This record gives sequence, structure tokens and C-alpha cells, in this order.
Amino acid sequence: MSALTAALTYLAEHRSRHTSALCELLSIPSVSMDPAYQADMTRAAAWLAAYLHRIGMSHTEIITGAGHPMVYSEWLGADGAPTLLIYGHYDVQPADPIAEWHTPPFTPTVSGDNLYARGASDDKGQVMAVIAALEAWLQTSGRLPINVKLIIEGEEEVSSTALHRFVAAAAERLRCDAVLLVDSMMLGPRQPLILYGTRGNCYLEVTVRGPATDLHSGMFGGVVDNPFNVLSRMLAALQDGETRRIQVPDFYQKVRVVDEAERALINQLPVSEAAWLHLTGAPALAGEAGFTVLERASIRPTLDIHGIGGGFSGPGKKTVIPAQATAKLSMRLVPDQDPHEIAELARVFLQRLAPPSVTLTVTVLSASHPVLVDYRHPAVQAASAAFAATFGNPAAFTIGGGTLPIAATFQKCLRAPLIITGFGLPDDNLHAPNEKISLPSLFGGSEMVARYVSALADSSA
Amino acid sequence: MSALTAALTYLAEHRSRHTSALCELLSIPSVSMDPAYQADMTRAAAWLAAYLHRIGMSHTEIITGAGHPMVYSEWLGADGAPTLLIYGHYDVQPADPIAEWHTPPFTPTVSGDNLYARGASDDKGQVMAVIAALEAWLQTSGRLPINVKLIIEGEEEVSSTALHRFVAAAAERLRCDAVLLVDSMMLGPRQPLILYGTRGNCYLEVTVRGPATDLHSGMFGGVVDNPFNVLSRMLAALQDGETRRIQVPDFYQKVRVVDEAERALINQLPVSEAAWLHLTGAPALAGEAGFTVLERASIRPTLDIHGIGGGFSGPGKKTVIPAQATAKLSMRLVPDQDPHEIAELARVFLQRLAPPSVTLTVTVLSASHPVLVDYRHPAVQAASAAFAATFGNPAAFTIGGGTLPIAATFQKCLRAPLIITGFGLPDDNLHAPNEKISLPSLFGGSEMVARYVSALADSSA
Repeated sequence: MSALTAALTYLAEHRSRHTSALCELLSIPSVSMDPAYQADMTRAAAWLAAYLHRIGMSHTEIITGAGHPMVYSEWLGADGAPTLLIYGHYDVQPADPIAEWHTPPFTPTVSGDNLYARGASDDKGQVMAVIAALEAWLQTSGRLPINVKLIIEGEEEVSSTALHRFVAAAAERLRCDAVLLVDSMMLGPRQPLILYGTRGNCYLEVTVRGPATDLHSGMFGGVVDNPFNVLSRMLAALQDGETRRIQVPDFYQKVRVVDEAERALINQLPVSEAAWLHLTGAPALAGEAGFTVLERASIRPTLDIHGIGGGFSGPGKKTVIPAQATAKLSMRLVPDQDPHEIAELARVFLQRLAPPSVTLTVTVLSASHPVLVDYRHPAVQAASAAFAATFGNPAAFTIGGGTLPIAATFQKCLRAPLIITGFGLPDDNLHAPNEKISLPSLFGGSEMVARYVSALADSSA
Repeated sequence: MSALTAALTYLAEHRSRHTSALCELLSIPSVSMDPAYQADMTRAAAWLAAYLHRIGMSHTEIITGAGHPMVYSEWLGADGAPTLLIYGHYDVQPADPIAEWHTPPFTPTVSGDNLYARGASDDKGQVMAVIAALEAWLQTSGRLPINVKLIIEGEEEVSSTALHRFVAAAAERLRCDAVLLVDSMMLGPRQPLILYGTRGNCYLEVTVRGPATDLHSGMFGGVVDNPFNVLSRMLAALQDGETRRIQVPDFYQKVRVVDEAERALINQLPVSEAAWLHLTGAPALAGEAGFTVLERASIRPTLDIHGIGGGFSGPGKKTVIPAQATAKLSMRLVPDQDPHEIAELARVFLQRLAPPSVTLTVTVLSASHPVLVDYRHPAVQAASAAFAATFGNPAAFTIGGGTLPIAATFQKCLRAPLIITGFGLPDDNLHAPNEKISLPSLFGGSEMVARYVSALADSSA
């Protein structure tokens, strides 16, 4: 039996135990954006470090500092072989709205082929798929076929501040031949996907302040501007209702012109409009005029409002003119838009719309650069081949609509090709109630990683 | 000593005890719109009934039925004298945002000349001012100079459903020569105000539903319409950003044309723009083009958004496309606008704006008619005179910007003139954090009522 076959056999025999281990990790509510879960962040990092130590990684440490702890683990015993840096994260999004979950978000629940929990797909399940593959090699061959450096951070959902600093400061220690980022998805149970780029993001909080305190709309209605009325006009002005074009002046100035060949490549993706409708449950799709759905989701920027606070939105009715109204919104950006430039353009535009009856504050909550990768690189194509051996199809290629804030930093500091991929599925309910991961995808993910490290070793032999 | 002088002396000597009694009532959190406070509603009604019984009202009962209990109390021993129906309410608005209160909303706190608590001004303080005046007459003369019927309801903040039914059903029992509604304010510490009308209100909840569940804005941004983006455009379309005119077709069709003489009367009110700025703390006033601030607050309709729910508006950031977004908004209406007609006009307008990518629901949360009264009626002018004797100035007259849903029903069912007035002040923070009542206004209010019942008796003698 070849070493790879032994590793794959090990994975097949330990699926149940690996699922239980993942459930342990998922039961720790490591919500990075809420200080109430600070102790759980520490618990989750410690759990991962202990697991990595147990399976035979030669060095594992928990790196603490200003932010949430990150787990770093390495096995560097393959002299002359390539080095692969693997990235994932153990922090998760908040679980609200809690009421819409069918099972408790931090009580992992298997139902059929799916495992439900906050973080099941984003990203604890995917991280554990990678770790299981490393475990399979270490437990069956006593070694890995290549050198591996593994980073599992705890701040992906809150801008990865600590990791950005770490990568910049420890670029020599993290030197590698390729970076495998496992925080994405496949297009379907048998259709892997590799992203040759991701959209960036510019997340703003826009606050309109009017009267000094909340006022009674009977007594003061018609006399002072209502911050909600003003904010609604501003938000409406950001996007054209017909074309869905963003109206911030110069917003599209640096958007890369994508040639017809690349548009054709993206439009080859086996995802139909009917599939998008099914996935979203929306009455109809809608997006920027002049682009296909697949283009709108990849090579075109967007603007989404995420929430509007202030006043009264509970049960019943209250006739209040609020002292202030706040909108959270973000713009997904594409190469070569710069998130800081876009934030400033939006701020200037909104400021111009603000009447003298209010004061306006625009705060940049995060700014992430878009990423572009050369998908023809051998380390990228080897990943596609490992997918093909596992799932029956090579990877499709597109630019990811989501944002991996750390990808731009890896690219800039390590100058290695990025393989942005993952084992989630489009209906995993990321960042939403009832997040889940498909167990067959999870097990397949482990096999793909086991094959990929083998292929990288072979390619350098 | 005249009977009136005896009553006024009694009031002067019992101020401290009356303040303590009011504090007892204010410490009961009778929030009518929140089912969590059901027991407190019952407690508050029982407290009032016991007090009224103790001071010598000849008959007091708690009327229960479908909604919150109402307190009815009468003294009908003045044969041949006029009958005055007096109206107030003991229910209060929710206290949120709690964090903005300087003292706990249901722990009444005296600071200088002010008493702070939810309901201090709206309307428990004003109700207790009336009751103290009745107590003063009953305790000093053993009788009232006129017949009095007192209704204190518990549903003013939630549409007065039970009281509307009661007034319609018990019109004969409630027969009277005038109705004194005590749920309003003075223009300043020495400037009483009588309203010869009030604006109506049409309160809507507008819900835009898009995808079946909350979605990740990276994966689905640009592909589905975001309910917040759509809702913002709809809300912005409701009002012109320059003229502040409401854009719902036919919205102004039934607005009464107010002649120049009446506009001049309203503009005589001693309230400067500087005073409005001071009251509101807004950077600048703003309202409908072509009208003065005093006109905008009285004879012109308005539209105010009160809250927008859905998505994520907590601390931090979440990149969600919400399944739905809901706005609460209301339009203050003027004679002869019909709230049901206006609701339908708004619904049709909004429906026309809804793209096929969402579904729209418009729910009417309440609909109250505007009211107009003849301010030249003797019972109205006698109230102005009682104010003058107490505060040194006769009442100013205008149309109230707020809504008293029950006023239209009283007018329709009892066919008696309404005296809509009160003892609050413009800076009482109604429906807002740090609600308060001025103790001098409260004590003056009791004296005014003591004088008014005396004057009504004299006018019929």
C-alpha cells in the first residue's frame, strides 16, 4: 500500500471520530466580535493546539498579543521538499437572529448528511478537514511528504488585525512555496472551485445626528429633520434603483476592465440562474445592468446595507423622532479599487448630501483590498488535480465574491501563489441562521488535502 | 373664606403629600404596549381607584374588558349645575433607550423644580393635578361646585381601543356639557395653551421581504436585491428632499385651506425659532417649504420614520443581506384628511415602487382622525380665564401637532365642546428618555382645575 493510500484508508476509517472532534470544537462559541466570548476564544485556540500536538505536528504554539490568540503549528522534516502554508480560522460570526435557528447554534447537530452549527462551514469544519489529512499522514507514515506551516487565526470575522501584523513581521519564518487558504466552498457536491481572486470590502458606519434627544413626532414632526428620513435619502442616493449602479462619483474609475475571454471563463461556471434563485429563495434576481449573474457575483463591485439602528423598531409602535440614525453598509470591491480611496469617495458624497439640519459621521469599520492570482501556476493546478482525483471533476475557476482580508497580505508579504478554495457548499447558510456543513464534502476535503500534499512532493521530486 | 379660596388654600398646604402620591403612581411601570407589564397596568388602575374613593368621589369603578382596565369615577351631586367630563390616561410609553436616562425611569426623582420619571408629564402628573383639585373641593366643601365624570384610561399609547368602544356604547351615561382633556402642555411656565384641534395620525409598518433567509453579502451581493437597499429607496421616495413635501399622490388633496386670519392667529404664538432650536437641540430647523415653523407644527401634515428593523445593527460588523427589512413610520394628518384613505394611498404608492425582486407588506398599526373645535365656545373661554387667574396669562390657541385618538370619538359621540389642554412643558421629553414634569406647573394645574369647576358653576348660576 502506498503512503498516500494508507493515509486515505486512515481517513475512511476515522470519519466518525473526526466528526466527534469537530463537534467538540463547534460547541465552543468562539464569536470574535463579541467581548462576551473572550474566554471561549482562548478555549478554542487551546483545543486546537492540543489536538495538533497530539497528532504529531513537530511544533505547535499559541501566539497571543493584542487580539484573539492564533494557533501556529508546523512540521518541517521534509528536507528539500516544498513548503506549504495552510490558512484557516476558528472564530465565527454571531449567531443572531437566534430565534431563526432550528437547532441551537452551539449544540452541533447531525441531520442526514449535514452537521448544523455556527462555524460548521465557516470555518471550523474546513480547518478540521485539513487537520484530519495531516493526522492521517503523520499517523500512517510518521511524517508528511512536504513541509507544512499551519496558521489558524481567531480574527477572520473582525479584520485579522493580529495576523496581518504577524505575517508582515514573520515573513521569513512563514516563507513557503504556496499558500492554501481553506475558507471557501465548492459549487456543488462534486464540483470543486478555486478562486483566482476575491473581492475586497469597504465597510462603513454612517451616523446622522439631528435633535439632541429623541423627540415626540407629534410635537416636533415637521419642525426638525428626522435623522431616519435624511438617512433614507442618503442611502437611496448611493445606488440607482433601475441600473443598480453605485452613484458615488469615481466609484468605478479603477475597476479593472475584464476582457471577453475572462468573462467567458467566468460565465462557464455551472451555476444557473435557477440555481441562484433556489439558493437565495428570492422572488427574483436583481443586479447591475449589463452584466450576467455570474459576473455580478465576481468581477463587479456591490453595495449592501446590513442594518439601520436608532429610534424604535420593537413590537408595537412608538412615535419618536430619533436623536440619531445609524446605517451599517459595505461595498464589495474588485481589482484595482482601493478600499481606503472608496471610503473617502463615499464619505465626500454622503457629506455633500447632508442638509444643515443634521451632522454626519462616516466611520470606516474595515477596509480590505481585492486580490488577483495567476491561476496557471503549477501549485494551483496541482490543487485542481487533487480535487479531480477526489470529487471526479477538476476545479472550476472564478473570482470569489466574498472577502478574505488576509489573502492580500499573504500575497504582498510572502510573494507565493495563493490557492483559495474550500469544502463548503453554496447552501451552507454562512453568516446566517442554520449554518451547516455537508459531511461528504468534509470527508472529501480531507482526502483532497491528503492527495495535494502528496502531489506537491511528487512535483518537486 | 370662599369655597374656592378654601380649595386653593388646601392645595397649597398639601403640595408635598400630592407629590408623594404622584411618585407612588409613577413607580408603577404601566407600559401599555408591552405585555410584560400587564400586572402593572392592573396595579396602576387599582391605585387610582382607591385614591379616588378615598377623597370622596361618590362612585368609582374599574372597567375591565378586552384591553387594559380603565378607571371611571363620578360625583353628580350638583343638581342643575353643568356636567364636566374630564379625561386623562395612566398608561405610559416604553422607557427605552434605557441607557440614556440619567435616573431610573420608574424611580421618580425630584431634582430642583422637576420630577423625573416615565409618565411624569404624559400623563400621570397631569391626571394627579386634576385629582388633587377635586380632592381639594371635596375635602374643604364636602362637594364639588359642578357634576364631574372622570375617565382615566390605560390605552392612550396603544390606540384607546377599549375607550373608543366605551364612549360609543355609554354616550348617554357620559352625557356632559364639556369635555376637559388633560394630556397636553403649556407653551412656557406662565403661558397656558388650549388646542382648538389636533393632528390625526396614520401609523404604518412597511416590510420588504427578499431572500428566504439572511444571506452572506460576499457570496450573494450584487445577485439579489437587498431589502434594506430597496426599502431605503421607497422611504426616500415618500418625501422630497428639498421641499419636504410628501410625495404620495393625492396626499394633500383633502387638506383644509387655512385662511390668512387663522394663519396669523397661529403665528402669534409666543414661540420663536430660537426657542424651537433650543428645545430640540437640532443643528437647524427644517420643514415643508412655504410654511412657518408654527404652521408646520400645527396645520401641516408630516411624515416621520420611527425605526428600521432587520439585519444587524449591533456593535461590530456583520456582512448580511437580510431576509427582510421593516420600517415603522407615521404621518401626522390635518383636517380633513382621513387616516384610512391616506393609508391606502401610501400602500398603493409603495406597492408601485416595489421591484419584482421583493414582496411588500404594508400594515396599518393605527389610524386616528384629526380634530377641529370651536375655540369661541364659553366653556373653552372659561378655561382660558381659569388659566389667566392661575398663571397670569390667558391661554394661547393653536392646533396641536400631536394626536389624541380619543378626542375625535368624544366629539363625535358626545357632541360637546372639547377643551384640549394640559400642564406639561415643551421640554418635558415626552416619549423620550428623561421625561419630567415641572412641579410649579403641576401645582398650578391643580389650581386651574379648582378655579375652572368653580367658573363653570358660576357661568350656569
